[in-house]
This record gives sequence, C-alpha cells and structure tokens, in this order.
Amino acid sequence: MRAKLADSIFLFNGKDGEFRAEITELDKKRASLLIKEKTREQNEEPDLWLLFAPIKHGKIDFLAQKATELGVSKLIPVFTKRTAVSRVNTQRLVSNAIEAAEQSERLTVPEIKEPEQLSMLLNSWPERRKIIMCDESGGGTPFKEAMEKEQKGNNQYAILIGPEGGFSEGELDMLHKLSYVIPVGMGPRILKADTAALAALACWQENLGDWNKKPKFKI
Amino acid sequence: MRAKLADSIFLFNGKDGEFRAEITELDKKRASLLIKEKTREQNEEPDLWLLFAPIKHGKIDFLAQKATELGVSKLIPVFTKRTAVSRVNTQRLVSNAIEAAEQSERLTVPEIKEPEQLSMLLNSWPERRKIIMCDESGGGTPFKEAMEKEQKGNNQYAILIGPEGGFSEGELDMLHKLSYVIPVGMGPRILKADTAALAALACWQENLGDWNKKPKFKI
Repeated sequence: MRAKLADSIFLFNGKDGEFRAEITELDKKRASLLIKEKTREQNEEPDLWLLFAPIKHGKIDFLAQKATELGVSKLIPVFTKRTAVSRVNTQRLVSNAIEAAEQSERLTVPEIKEPEQLSMLLNSWPERRKIIMCDESGGGTPFKEAMEKEQKGNNQYAILIGPEGGFSEGELDMLHKLSYVIPVGMGPRILKADTAALAALACWQENLGDWNKKPKFKI
Repeated sequence: MRAKLADSIFLFNGKDGEFRAEITELDKKRASLLIKEKTREQNEEPDLWLLFAPIKHGKIDFLAQKATELGVSKLIPVFTKRTAVSRVNTQRLVSNAIEAAEQSERLTVPEIKEPEQLSMLLNSWPERRKIIMCDESGGGTPFKEAMEKEQKGNNQYAILIGPEGGFSEGELDMLHKLSYVIPVGMGPRILKADTAALAALACWQENLGDWNKKPKFKI
C-alpha cells in the first residue's frame, strides 16, 4: 500500500456500506484512520454459490477472481470421482477473492469453504436452493430455456461445474434424480471447467441476478 | 506431437467437416497421413465478432483462448483513446486460437485481424452487423432486455469491449449515436475487460447463438 498521511481510503465490512477514511497516523507497522463520511450504502447482493471441482493452481486463482467479479456469494470446491486435484489452498483463494472484490467495487467478499466430497455435500443439501448443473454429456435443457422456467422470487441458487474429465455415469445418474438439480446445456462446443463456470455465472446474473442494476459510482 | 506410426489423427479445414486419418509414414520432419473416414459434418457456426481494446500479454492470450471456446468467429483488436497497449502479437493470438479450437472440438478457427483504430473501423462498418457495446458508464439497457428486442433471424453481431480505463466521453457520444450500436449494461459490479468480454460472449450465445444445440461426440 503506497498510501501517505492524509490520504483517503475506502473501507467496507460487508454489512454497513462503504466509508471514506483519512490516514491520521502512519508508521511502518500500523496506521490510524479517521472515518469521514459514508460513501455508499450496502446493497443486497445475489445469493449464488459456485460448486466446482478444483482445478490446477493458477487456473483456480483465476476462477476465484473472476467468480468474485461476477458476484458469487460462496465458493465451494467439491471432489468428484474424476477430480484430479486433491488439495486446495483455500487461504490463497480468499486473498484472490478479496482483491477482486475491491477492484470490482463489491462491498462484500464471497465466503470460501473447505473442499468437500460431492456426495457428502448433497447429503446435507438445503433443498430450497436449486443447483444449476452444467451438463457436458448433452443431457441438459438449453440454458435460456431452463432460466425461463425459474421465477425471480426464488433467489437461492448454486451453479455446479464438473471436473475436466466430466462427471462419472454414477454421478450423472444421482444428479439427474435430485428434484432440486437443473441440468443445463451450454452449446455444442466443449468448454473448459473455468470457462463453463464463468459463462454460467454470467448467464445466471443476466437472467436471475442483478444485471438490471447499474454501477454505483462514488460520490 | 507424441503421435506414433499407425496412430489416428483428426483433421479439419474449416469447411468440409472432420476426418480421421492414420499416420502411414513418420520421420522427424514430416509425416504422411491416409484419410480413413469422415467423422463429423461441418456445421454452421454463429457469426459473432469480438472487438476488444488490447490488454496485457498473458491476459490477451487468455482472452483469445476463451473467446474461441465460446464460439467467436472473428477477433479484432481496436485501439481507443485510453488503450494502454500499443502493439499486438496477432501471430501469438492465432496459435492460442488454434489450440483452443482443437480442445473445444470446434471445426473452425476464428479469424484474427490486425489491430485498427476504433474510429477507422466504424467508418467502414457493415451497418447490417449490430454492435453490442458493453457500456460501463451505466448508460446501457440491461443485457437481457436488449437481447429480447433482437430477432433470431438477424445473425450478424459484434461485441465491443472498451479498455480498462473505459471509453472516453467522445467515444461514448459517437457510439451512442450510431444506429447499429446497442449499448448494454452488465450489472453493478465493475468487470475487468477480459471478464466483460467472456460474460458478453456467453450471454450472446445463450440468447442468440447456438446454445440450443448439443455437443456432437465422435462416432
């Protein structure tokens, strides 16, 4: 941080809005800030989770950044049968999400959960939250058609992206049987896992999220 | 390429479909292939261009890859008033696009044009092709609403993404005056240029492109 004494800094805590503060004391280890004014109200944000099979270092950082820009509220890495990556540095994902939240002018940081087995996660799934499952096997409804059946009133969703090798047959069977899972198709081209995640987040925001709102610029 | 004698290779030229060929001769410098069978028909692909202000090395490679996965047919780097990058290695973008086309099972490679000034490009613009302009200034129609006004019959579009610093006031004025420009909004969060491009490409494919089609797996 290259800030100097008397510089302005913008602060948010995820619930009270955004405030402009000035630096009143500064040394190498610490700074004191004096809050001068409220600059933005906290506003309601979409309640959208992303469940994704972890991918390689670098690509997973990128995914955390872009998903944050696209307004995800919770990121949950899930292990599936064909997931090739076995460990996730969630602390690094948190750092990526914080930086992306600041740059995108969000006033919240998405929650990052520790990885979980897909089957375990579904065992205790809150059924009111629908899961939009990106189904590469071709078994899903086209994305737009699926969105048209949803109502803007229900606003708890999750997007589920499989691993690079796809879901196993057993996983596909299980997912297709769950009443709260909506299998969707995303066209004829094979998308990489990170591309599919960003594409689905964008299309969800466009259809059911907050893309009807405009950016709120600072006063 | 780690292929060996008698291995199968899949070939496409962007107009006749996909063919399986076997390697009949192989040395360090060259190989002979014998075409054995046609494996997929060429199918019609969306006619969607992406005009983007060039961004930094690394990020621009990534953009070319992801845009190819998302089915773009032509990439045109455009210089705007606030574009910070002044040179583009189009040959490297071509390599990125070829690799992404293969991996996404496309049977075409998007055309990559040499960079051009935005104003020059618009001077000779084919007016039948509408430009969906991602308008960070908040002056656009929400994306979904804008798409609902379009007809699936007109199928020539381009997406225009500004530089990291946004369009200048003069550019915004000029763009808003053009009858074939559709300014769209993409919600309250500030998206980076590459994120905005991918999000817009995905939403266009979902609404006006070919996301109603399914992947065609090899026979």
